[in-house]
Amino acid sequence: MTWESDPTIEEAIAAIGPPDEAAMRAAREHQARLTKPPGALGLLEGLPVRLAGLAGTCPPPLPEPAAVAVFAADHGVHAQGVSPWPQEVTAQMVANFLAGGAVVNAFAAQVGATVTVVDVGVAADLADAPGLLRRKIAPGTADMTAGPAMTGDQVRRAVAAGIEVARDLAAAGARCLLTGDMGIANTTASAALIAAFTGLPPERVTGRGTGIDDATHARKIEVVRAALVRHGLTGPPGPREGREAALRVLAAVGGFEHAALAGFILGGAALRLPVVLDGVIAGAAALAAAELAPDAVRACVAGHRSAEPGHSATVDHLGLRPLIDLELRLGEGTGALLALPLVQGAVRVLHEVATFDSAGVSGKATTQHHGMITE
Amino acid sequence: MTWESDPTIEEAIAAIGPPDEAAMRAAREHQARLTKPPGALGLLEGLPVRLAGLAGTCPPPLPEPAAVAVFAADHGVHAQGVSPWPQEVTAQMVANFLAGGAVVNAFAAQVGATVTVVDVGVAADLADAPGLLRRKIAPGTADMTAGPAMTGDQVRRAVAAGIEVARDLAAAGARCLLTGDMGIANTTASAALIAAFTGLPPERVTGRGTGIDDATHARKIEVVRAALVRHGLTGPPGPREGREAALRVLAAVGGFEHAALAGFILGGAALRLPVVLDGVIAGAAALAAAELAPDAVRACVAGHRSAEPGHSATVDHLGLRPLIDLELRLGEGTGALLALPLVQGAVRVLHEVATFDSAGVSGKATTQHHGMITE
Repeated sequence: MTWESDPTIEEAIAAIGPPDEAAMRAAREHQARLTKPPGALGLLEGLPVRLAGLAGTCPPPLPEPAAVAVFAADHGVHAQGVSPWPQEVTAQMVANFLAGGAVVNAFAAQVGATVTVVDVGVAADLADAPGLLRRKIAPGTADMTAGPAMTGDQVRRAVAAGIEVARDLAAAGARCLLTGDMGIANTTASAALIAAFTGLPPERVTGRGTGIDDATHARKIEVVRAALVRHGLTGPPGPREGREAALRVLAAVGGFEHAALAGFILGGAALRLPVVLDGVIAGAAALAAAELAPDAVRACVAGHRSAEPGHSATVDHLGLRPLIDLELRLGEGTGALLALPLVQGAVRVLHEVATFDSAGVSGKATTQHHGMITE
Repeated sequence: MTWESDPTIEEAIAAIGPPDEAAMRAAREHQARLTKPPGALGLLEGLPVRLAGLAGTCPPPLPEPAAVAVFAADHGVHAQGVSPWPQEVTAQMVANFLAGGAVVNAFAAQVGATVTVVDVGVAADLADAPGLLRRKIAPGTADMTAGPAMTGDQVRRAVAAGIEVARDLAAAGARCLLTGDMGIANTTASAALIAAFTGLPPERVTGRGTGIDDATHARKIEVVRAALVRHGLTGPPGPREGREAALRVLAAVGGFEHAALAGFILGGAALRLPVVLDGVIAGAAALAAAELAPDAVRACVAGHRSAEPGHSATVDHLGLRPLIDLELRLGEGTGALLALPLVQGAVRVLHEVATFDSAGVSGKATTQHHGMITE
């Protein structure tokens, strides 16, 4: 396995920098003048400030139009009996996405986002179709319990493919990127990645995915544990060894969609565009992206809190707080899409809401009846 | 104070009935055939089933177009020093709504809802304006600590006004109603209503509203307590005495916007339209509506969980689970508007998502590797 640098990856990482503090300050000051009580928008007040820092301008651009990229791939670890769903469902659901018949399509139609499906590793030949990007690295990963899921070359190509999809969607006009995924058995790979990147034990981060019985769940935990042992990834993560270590973890236990999603996040961050993360698959990919370029997390908005147990640990590790918390566990990008109007609404406030001065609204009394001011 | 029946209120209550069980069963059965793992949409799976029961048809109609009605009024209890904001801010914010400069306007623009402002009791003369409905009962309520906030005639007229606004918006095409409110000091009236309807003590349900210091907060709690004592509303609520008791509580400690919102909820339920509730003001009004017609709660969707302490107790009492939980405490309808795309998306799933059969997607294995099926 070789780890020479890939120019697409290097270029994206080089473009990812720290936040623009002046733009963030301007956003905070502007928000304080708007016709609403200070703090009344709760957790939505920090979001446009963060996006101002990302964009380097205040107010930050409205995050629309929005585009969800659904990265689809199959997993060699499916052979270990970790899912009750046959592997061909990955390709069947891709066809369903392209026909407009899945939940991701319904939610995208509701919130006005486009859906692009990216085949980075489906174990079937897919015909050309509108809305499909053919970027297949291989027809499924290898079984992580028997060896690395990907070669070094494959993982770099998958990350680069994700970066290029972000660039292509931005070039087509997207101003907000949303992550989506499809891949039978990909919660198993996600659990392994989360355990490797956070140091948490497999039983803490391995969930029931699309719905499995107790015995299959127990087997899935043991499969994750065996893969971590096989690749020397148990226990607390060591000191960061840079990009090579992150790519080695992705290659050892990840999926093509995880690698591509990590690239998609890097690509979005390099373009200073917000990337709304879906659930546990995107979270696992974001952990990899954060190892490759820590500042990439600044572009990420956690769309929702997945019902998968590893997801809360993931968002905590990333320092993100999910916007939606409705026990969803569907994937496809559905949780990111439901969060999109909240992200757009929070930014729109900075564009459209009047200030106390401009609207002629009286301010709050500066001294209150009993003198003490707590704000 | 007289409590003769009001024909508008009686007619609305008479039209509110139990859910259509057949439509709910059809919705559950249809949902089970859709191309997604069972239960994967979490708390959004029950919502369209409930709305099918409300509408009496499966799938339930798409809840669009949507209309938010912002009921605005002033409060005599403002004189007790419960808010740092001057009372004229109510009228100033109404002008801001009508000029399109408030957060409710930005969020409504984001999610495609109309904004109608209803003056049911602002303490200022408001000129005619597009988007304003002039339904003033009186220029502000009386001080609840000195006597009833409203007369019996006033409370019935305010409830009837809310019912009529729901009817008028539906006649103009709205298929989803959202509650909004504006009224300096209206969290004080809300706390008193919630205490009266749930039996919780004032210190449990009285919050900091738009942001008050510790001393003002302590005073606000004592004001609520004094009003409850004044009107004999302390302690656990007695056995339900029907509509008259509910109207007496509203009149004693409520605001014109609370009474109108209770009517708005009754009006929506009578029309079998979903009513997305904003935060603590709408919740207090919904408690009154539930006393007037228990089945009215079936039309209610809790848009968000307010940061106000009385709100969680209120949604628990109503048996509702809020969709958004982001520590918002702005009012105006902002929390309901952020929830709207979730409600619409959840219903859209039943309209547009393919079934396993129609999409040619393989089902989950009916026996799993170790035999036991937990679902």
